[in-house]
Amino acid sequence: MRLEALARALGVRLLGDGDLEVTRVRAVDDAGDGELGFAAAPEELRTAHTTKAAALLVPEGWAAEHAHEAPCAVLAAEHPARALAAAIDALYPAPAAPRGVDPRAVVHAGARLGRDVAVGPGAVVGRAVLGDGVIIGPLAYVADGVVIGARSRVGPGALVLEGVQVGADALIGPGAVLGDEGFVFAPLDDDARRANVPVRHVGGVVLEDGVAVGANTCVDRGALRDTHVGAHARIDNLVQLGHDVQVGADAVLVAQVGVAGWSTIGAGAVLAGQAGVKERTRVGERARVGGQAGVVHDVADGAAVAGTPTMPHLAWLKAMVRLQGLDALERRVRALEQRLGAPLERRP
Amino acid sequence: MRLEALARALGVRLLGDGDLEVTRVRAVDDAGDGELGFAAAPEELRTAHTTKAAALLVPEGWAAEHAHEAPCAVLAAEHPARALAAAIDALYPAPAAPRGVDPRAVVHAGARLGRDVAVGPGAVVGRAVLGDGVIIGPLAYVADGVVIGARSRVGPGALVLEGVQVGADALIGPGAVLGDEGFVFAPLDDDARRANVPVRHVGGVVLEDGVAVGANTCVDRGALRDTHVGAHARIDNLVQLGHDVQVGADAVLVAQVGVAGWSTIGAGAVLAGQAGVKERTRVGERARVGGQAGVVHDVADGAAVAGTPTMPHLAWLKAMVRLQGLDALERRVRALEQRLGAPLERRP
Amino acid sequence: MRLEALARALGVRLLGDGDLEVTRVRAVDDAGDGELGFAAAPEELRTAHTTKAAALLVPEGWAAEHAHEAPCAVLAAEHPARALAAAIDALYPAPAAPRGVDPRAVVHAGARLGRDVAVGPGAVVGRAVLGDGVIIGPLAYVADGVVIGARSRVGPGALVLEGVQVGADALIGPGAVLGDEGFVFAPLDDDARRANVPVRHVGGVVLEDGVAVGANTCVDRGALRDTHVGAHARIDNLVQLGHDVQVGADAVLVAQVGVAGWSTIGAGAVLAGQAGVKERTRVGERARVGGQAGVVHDVADGAAVAGTPTMPHLAWLKAMVRLQGLDALERRVRALEQRLGAPLERRP
Repeated sequence: MRLEALARALGVRLLGDGDLEVTRVRAVDDAGDGELGFAAAPEELRTAHTTKAAALLVPEGWAAEHAHEAPCAVLAAEHPARALAAAIDALYPAPAAPRGVDPRAVVHAGARLGRDVAVGPGAVVGRAVLGDGVIIGPLAYVADGVVIGARSRVGPGALVLEGVQVGADALIGPGAVLGDEGFVFAPLDDDARRANVPVRHVGGVVLEDGVAVGANTCVDRGALRDTHVGAHARIDNLVQLGHDVQVGADAVLVAQVGVAGWSTIGAGAVLAGQAGVKERTRVGERARVGGQAGVVHDVADGAAVAGTPTMPHLAWLKAMVRLQGLDALERRVRALEQRLGAPLERRP
Repeated sequence: MRLEALARALGVRLLGDGDLEVTRVRAVDDAGDGELGFAAAPEELRTAHTTKAAALLVPEGWAAEHAHEAPCAVLAAEHPARALAAAIDALYPAPAAPRGVDPRAVVHAGARLGRDVAVGPGAVVGRAVLGDGVIIGPLAYVADGVVIGARSRVGPGALVLEGVQVGADALIGPGAVLGDEGFVFAPLDDDARRANVPVRHVGGVVLEDGVAVGANTCVDRGALRDTHVGAHARIDNLVQLGHDVQVGADAVLVAQVGVAGWSTIGAGAVLAGQAGVKERTRVGERARVGGQAGVVHDVADGAAVAGTPTMPHLAWLKAMVRLQGLDALERRVRALEQRLGAPLERRP
Repeated sequence: MRLEALARALGVRLLGDGDLEVTRVRAVDDAGDGELGFAAAPEELRTAHTTKAAALLVPEGWAAEHAHEAPCAVLAAEHPARALAAAIDALYPAPAAPRGVDPRAVVHAGARLGRDVAVGPGAVVGRAVLGDGVIIGPLAYVADGVVIGARSRVGPGALVLEGVQVGADALIGPGAVLGDEGFVFAPLDDDARRANVPVRHVGGVVLEDGVAVGANTCVDRGALRDTHVGAHARIDNLVQLGHDVQVGADAVLVAQVGVAGWSTIGAGAVLAGQAGVKERTRVGERARVGGQAGVVHDVADGAAVAGTPTMPHLAWLKAMVRLQGLDALERRVRALEQRLGAPLERRP
C-alpha cells in the first residue's frame, strides 16, 4: 500500500515520501524493506533512529521533536495503538471467518441460533441462545441455558457452563471455564465426613458487552448472586475470578490475577499480573494494584498500591529500597550502641 | 415454602412469622420480597438490620444478641453453611442429572461402566472402570486404566490420564488435568542435546473419596511413587500439584496455589490463594499458610505462617507494619547519629 | 532384571551382589523387596541407610564415601537422573504408542500427515502439516497452518491455534493453549466504547526442537513479531508466556511463572515457580530467578536474584532475616533514643 494512502486511511500525519510501498507491520527493531515499523513505548522509540524500516508509525508527541532523527518516512499518530490496529486492518486481509455449523459439531435441537452463527467441528452446544454472528470454536462447550450476544466469539475448547450469560462483542479465550461452582463448602458442619460437601450455587455468571476473557481463565458462578463482569472489562489468561465477584466496567485484570469470592473490583481498576485479592475485599474505581500485590484491605478509589499487604505505591517503593539497606541500618544501630554504651559504662 | 416448614426442614430456630412464604435464597444485601437472605460473615451481618429480605438465615450466636435488630423474620442456625445448603436443596429443584451414554460420546468397548453412568456428548472414555452413578461431562477425556468410584463427577473438558485412580463422591472440575507427567528431566546429562529428556514417570495419581479438584487445576503423576490426595481434600481452581506430592485428608488448597514436586501437605492444612510450596517441603497437619506465602522450609503441625519465606503469622504482621515504618526508622537512626556524632567529634 | 545386567545397561558401577533381581524403581523410602530405590537429593540420601530396597541407585560422589552404609547393593552413577531414566526404560515395557488416525478424529482433507502419525479420538486437525511420528492426543485441536515437527506429541485437549510452528521432539502438555492473541488493546482511544478493541496480532508462535510445554500453560502469539521459544526450553504447567516474548534455548520456567509481553528470557535461565517478569524486561542468560520473585528491572547474565522487586539472592536472604528482626531493631533504636534523650535534656 502506498504510504500516502495508508496515512489517509489511518488519519495520521505523513512526514516523508508518500510514494513508498509498505506491505507489513513489524516491531521497530525487526522491520525492514517494505515494512512499517511500530514504536510507541520509550524502549521502542529509543531504537527508532537505527530502524531499517521503510517507514515508522510513532506517537505524534515523539514525531514533533524527533521525526528528523528517523532514517525513514514517519507516520505521526495521536493514538498510536488505534493507528496500529487500523494499519493492520489496511495491510492484512481480514482473517477468514468460519461459517455455518460444522457437521461434526453437536448442536441440541432446542438451541436457538441467530443468523450467520458458526460452530466449529467437535463443539457441543446445548439448549442455548446464540446471537447473530456468534462464533463457537472447535471443541468448545456451550451448555443448556447459556445466552450469548451478537458477534461474540467463544474460543476453541472453552467451556461455558449452564445458564451463563454473555453480552455482545465479547471474547471468550480458548480453554476458559465460565460458570463452574465456586469454592464454597459447608465448613461448620460437625460431621467430618460431610465437611467438604459443596454448597450448591444459585447464582450465575453475567458478562456484559465487550468483555474479554483470556485463555484458561476461570470465572466461577455466584453462590448467592451472579458473578458479574461489567462492559468492556478485560481479563487476561489464567485469571481466577471467584464466586459472587463483581468486576466494574473497563476494569483490567492482567494474567494470573486471582480474586477471591465475594470481592469487588471497581470500574476502570487495573490489577497487574499475579496480584491477588482476598475474599470480601473491594478494590476502588480506577485504582491501580501492582504486580504480585496482595490486597487484604479495601483499596480506595483512584489509589495506587503495591506489596503484600498492599500499601501506597510510593511508600512501597521506598520500603523496598530501605529493605535492601536493612543490613547497613542494623550495623549503624550497632555502632551507635557501641559508641553510646561506652560513656554509659564509664559513668560513676 | 412456608418459613415454619423450612425451619423444620433445616432444623433451625424460627423467630418471627412462620406463615411467610420464601422461594429463593440471596445474599443479605440482595434479597427482597419472598426471599431468604443469608448472612454469616461479619461483613454480611453488619448489613442485616437494613435487609429487605422476607427472612434472614443467620448464625445462632448472632441471633441470640441481635435478632431483635433484624427488620424481618429470622432463622437461627447452629451451622449456617449447612443450613444454607439445606435451604437451597429445599427451595430449588434438584438439577437434572444427565443420564446414559450420549451417542456422540466415544466409549471404548473394553470400558466397564457401573449402573446409571452418564457420559456427555463428545466425551472420550478408554478402557476405564466407572462406578455406579459416575457422570462424565461433555468433551471430557478418561484414559485407559482409569478407575473412578461411585457417584464421582468428571467436569466438561476435564482430562483424566492413564491409570489415574479416583475414589467415590469426588468432583473433578472442568478443564482439570490429572496424571500428566511431572517436571522431571535428566539435568545432569553431559550431552546438551539430551539435557531436557524427560524422565518417564512410573508413579500414578490417586485421589481418595470425596476429593474436590477445581477448574483447570493440574495434578501431576508421581515420578517414583503415586501423587496422593487424601479423602475430602478440597483443591480450588488453577492449582498446581507437582509429581509425588502427598496431600493429607481434609486439606484445603485455595486457587492458584502451587506445590512443587516431592512435597507433603499435612491433613487438614489450609493453604490460602497463590501460596507456593518449594520442592521436598512439608506443611504440617492443620497448619495455615497465608495467601501468596512462599514455603521454603517445613511448617510445623498447627502453625500459622505467612510471607516469603514464611515466618509465624503474627511476626509477619508485625514485620509488615515495621516495613512501612522503615523510612521513619532510618530517619531516627540518622538523627541519633547526628546527635551522637557531635559530642564525639568535640572530644579532645 | 539381574542387577549386573542392569548396571551394564546403565553404564554404572555395581557394588554388591550382581545376581539380585530387581523389577521396579521406587523412591528410596518406598522401595522394598525386588525394587531399586532411587536417591540423589540430600534429603533422599539421608534415608539411604534405612532403605528396604533390594538395591539403591545413587550418585557416584555419595557412593564413594557412603556405599558401605547402605544395607543393600548399590549402583553408583555419574549422572543419576540419566541413569534413572535408563533404568526405567530397562525395567518397564515401553508405553504402547497410539497408532493411526482414529476414525472419530476430524482431520481436514488438506492436512499433510507424515508417516506413523497418530491422531486420537475426538481430536480436530485442520490444514496442518504433521511430521513423521507425530502424536496428537484425544480431543486436541490443531488449527489451519500449524506445522509440527517429527516425533512431537500434542497432549489430550491441547489447543494449537492458527499458524503455530512446533519443531521436532517437542512435548505440548494436555490443555495447553498455543497461539491465542495477547493482551494488547488500543488504550489511547478517545472513544470509551472502543477502548478495549483488541489489536489484531500479526506475529505467530515458534517453538524450536525439543521444547516442552506443560499442562494448561498458555503461550500467546506475538503482536508484531513471533513469540519464540528456543530449543529444549522447558516450560512447566500453568505458565503464562505473553505476546512477543523471546525465550532462549534450554531455559527453564517452573509452574505458574508469568512472563509479560515483549520480554526476553535468556538462554539457560531458570525461573522458579510463581516468579513474574514485567513487560519489556530482560532476564539474562543462565540467570536464576527465585520462586515468587518479581522481575521489574533487567537481570544480568548469570545473576541470581530473588524478591519483589528482585535483588541479588544473597542480599534478599539477608534482608529477609533482618525483616524478621525489625521489631527488635525498632526497640533498640527506641532504647538509644531514651538513653541519648536523657543527657541531652539535662544539658543546661
